[in-house]
Amino acid sequence: MPAYKDLSREELEAQKKELELEFEKVKQKNLKLDMSRGKPSTEQLNLSMGMMDVLRSDSDLVCEEGVDCRNYGVLDGIRETKQLLADMMEVPKDNIVIFGNSSLNIMYDTVARSMTHGVMGSTPWMKLDKVKFLCPVPGYDRHFTITEHFGIEMVNVPMTPEGPDMDLVEKLVAEDASIKGIWCVPKYSNPQGITYSDETVHRFAWLRPAAEDFRIYWDNAYGIHHLYEDKHDYLIEILMECKKAGNPDMVYKFASTSKISFPGSGISAIAASDANLAEIRKQMKVQTIGHDKVNQLRHARFFKDISGMVQHMHKHADIMRPKFEAVLDTLERELGGLEIGSWIAPRGGYFISFDAMEGCAKAIVAKAKEAGLVMTDAGATYPYGKDPKDSNIRIAPSYPTLEELKTATEIFVLSVKLVSIEKLLEDI
Amino acid sequence: MPAYKDLSREELEAQKKELELEFEKVKQKNLKLDMSRGKPSTEQLNLSMGMMDVLRSDSDLVCEEGVDCRNYGVLDGIRETKQLLADMMEVPKDNIVIFGNSSLNIMYDTVARSMTHGVMGSTPWMKLDKVKFLCPVPGYDRHFTITEHFGIEMVNVPMTPEGPDMDLVEKLVAEDASIKGIWCVPKYSNPQGITYSDETVHRFAWLRPAAEDFRIYWDNAYGIHHLYEDKHDYLIEILMECKKAGNPDMVYKFASTSKISFPGSGISAIAASDANLAEIRKQMKVQTIGHDKVNQLRHARFFKDISGMVQHMHKHADIMRPKFEAVLDTLERELGGLEIGSWIAPRGGYFISFDAMEGCAKAIVAKAKEAGLVMTDAGATYPYGKDPKDSNIRIAPSYPTLEELKTATEIFVLSVKLVSIEKLLEDI
Repeated sequence: MPAYKDLSREELEAQKKELELEFEKVKQKNLKLDMSRGKPSTEQLNLSMGMMDVLRSDSDLVCEEGVDCRNYGVLDGIRETKQLLADMMEVPKDNIVIFGNSSLNIMYDTVARSMTHGVMGSTPWMKLDKVKFLCPVPGYDRHFTITEHFGIEMVNVPMTPEGPDMDLVEKLVAEDASIKGIWCVPKYSNPQGITYSDETVHRFAWLRPAAEDFRIYWDNAYGIHHLYEDKHDYLIEILMECKKAGNPDMVYKFASTSKISFPGSGISAIAASDANLAEIRKQMKVQTIGHDKVNQLRHARFFKDISGMVQHMHKHADIMRPKFEAVLDTLERELGGLEIGSWIAPRGGYFISFDAMEGCAKAIVAKAKEAGLVMTDAGATYPYGKDPKDSNIRIAPSYPTLEELKTATEIFVLSVKLVSIEKLLEDI
Repeated sequence: MPAYKDLSREELEAQKKELELEFEKVKQKNLKLDMSRGKPSTEQLNLSMGMMDVLRSDSDLVCEEGVDCRNYGVLDGIRETKQLLADMMEVPKDNIVIFGNSSLNIMYDTVARSMTHGVMGSTPWMKLDKVKFLCPVPGYDRHFTITEHFGIEMVNVPMTPEGPDMDLVEKLVAEDASIKGIWCVPKYSNPQGITYSDETVHRFAWLRPAAEDFRIYWDNAYGIHHLYEDKHDYLIEILMECKKAGNPDMVYKFASTSKISFPGSGISAIAASDANLAEIRKQMKVQTIGHDKVNQLRHARFFKDISGMVQHMHKHADIMRPKFEAVLDTLERELGGLEIGSWIAPRGGYFISFDAMEGCAKAIVAKAKEAGLVMTDAGATYPYGKDPKDSNIRIAPSYPTLEELKTATEIFVLSVKLVSIEKLLEDI
């Protein structure tokens, strides 16, 4: 099949008729499929069930520093869990603070604290007329929701295959002191699966922002979430790079075990410079007596060490890989050469990002829904839910079974074809 | 022994000499004792060890609403845990939202949200020149730390045996619109063990504050933490009382299982009106995908229902009661009639509050420390750590063993006597 744009009106009409018949047939099946959220599958959850037996009523629940994990005490995380998550985040264990079950919650708290107390002595952002964040797009909707919630103006920065457009980032942060942060998912990015290149990370570390309280929000959510054992993306460690560049305080790094052990019942952490962590602990001490140490201990004893965690991630990869391949195969087979959409085959993470023809994303998602397939809302990958080109759609292959996923992707490509033809017919 | 104030200088000097000898003897023992924090003892923690076996690798982790607790989903708490904590908090289960492991964290978030977003549409407190909270004193230091952290001015309100001085509370909230809240521990209060009388709760519900965004912060931390099975304090349920008074939105109620299951690994909750909870959920949705449902399920299955939880609390009471009695017996035996201090025998909670002669509390705590006994810092029960009379000392009998506690209380009364005599000698 040649590219759709090269077809005549008649050819398009004929093709449309054929696809509509196919679509009607699928609709009649009354399917209920969901490719909308990055949820691990039941099979993946089962991988961590051993965690339930690690701590028992006859277990010693005293952690390495000699504290009974069942009682109050230890504000910022027990030693063995700090070591595990520090290794996971590739930072020294003194540069990590363990929180509760959600790294999103840490990011929220970090922005909230900056609003009310500023950053290391700067003016509280609530007292400023204007605060802005840079948002590489497409990006993660929940990041954008936090900044929107606090009335922070979001400025789009286009993603490239190397990461955010660094010429633009450098220019904007250097000239505008109201820019206080940038949201980054630097490895296997949400939704594109892009890993920032060495040069991009280097340029991040060497930023010279006008605002002294500018911080890089480095959400390394998929740091060890590879799809292949032999083909990994590598990401330069940002804390060390910032330190080398004389910018040790410029970055907050976030991560969690949500997609390693159990989403919602995992462990999260922030890594940052000593000065940043001192400020974070100061707030933390007001906010809580401490997070769930029993669960911290459960994680440390289950994974034992980073090597154990890496082995565990291979099992996740074995489940995820065929799903990603199924989606990518169908996209390639059904849409390859039609020039009505593009995508990237990622080597890790939780998503495949699809770029439809301009002005088609919303219609495609609506079309898929007609046939019982729920996709992430079109626009969700952009601040304020507004994709200026109405083009990007996030595909989340993790949760459905392989069978469901094949059907879901068939519906998706059918929807893409139909909406694209309609668009082309309009424009002829 | 007659009251110290009726002794002559010579009698006081003689008494002092004797006590000093005794004190030197104790000092020589190089003891290390701690009556400073309301931590459950190891024996109490052991009561909940069965919780470790409730969920196992072969358990079904699906909750009542059919959700797999191991995955994302269910923002505000699973049904069975809502029911359990709603019963514990004596509110309908629709008026409760479950959070993470710390009710202090909920209180912090509640104040933080009011700072940045106001309360149900009111001006964010950060945008106001002055925000004040009423603080019944003596009270809980961690409450005061939260308001201090946000630059909220704290106004002392004296406690009476019935609760806070309601004449003063009514007057202040009616005339000063900058008063936005009041911190309350209404049952077995921290540190006095006072339960607010029916009339006090009624008057709270009928407050007519000048500020529409005034809220009662009702920290019912010790709602079921009785010392006796047959002698309970009873507290009128504040949500219903506020509803009856036409003030349904005026109260936030907080509680947790920290001193029921495991401190730091329990479950916390907020109870409030539909309108308040709608606002809370709106924020919560930005802050997190959800709290730890596995731990929620663990609690629900371990306690089964409120009756199971009440039975469990009897076991705590059996451990706590002799400790409280040991302290109270020693206070009575050693200080009774001396008129150098007063205290209340509580029927629940975690503390005994001791009021020394004016100007003696700091010196007593320092004296006790000389002999190896750590007490809560004098002043900690007041905002800004400033007890205007330097009189109140909080005694926390829960953590030490009964033996340790007896020795600790001996050191304490010895310190009280010595410091009081020195004070009296100064004033003669």
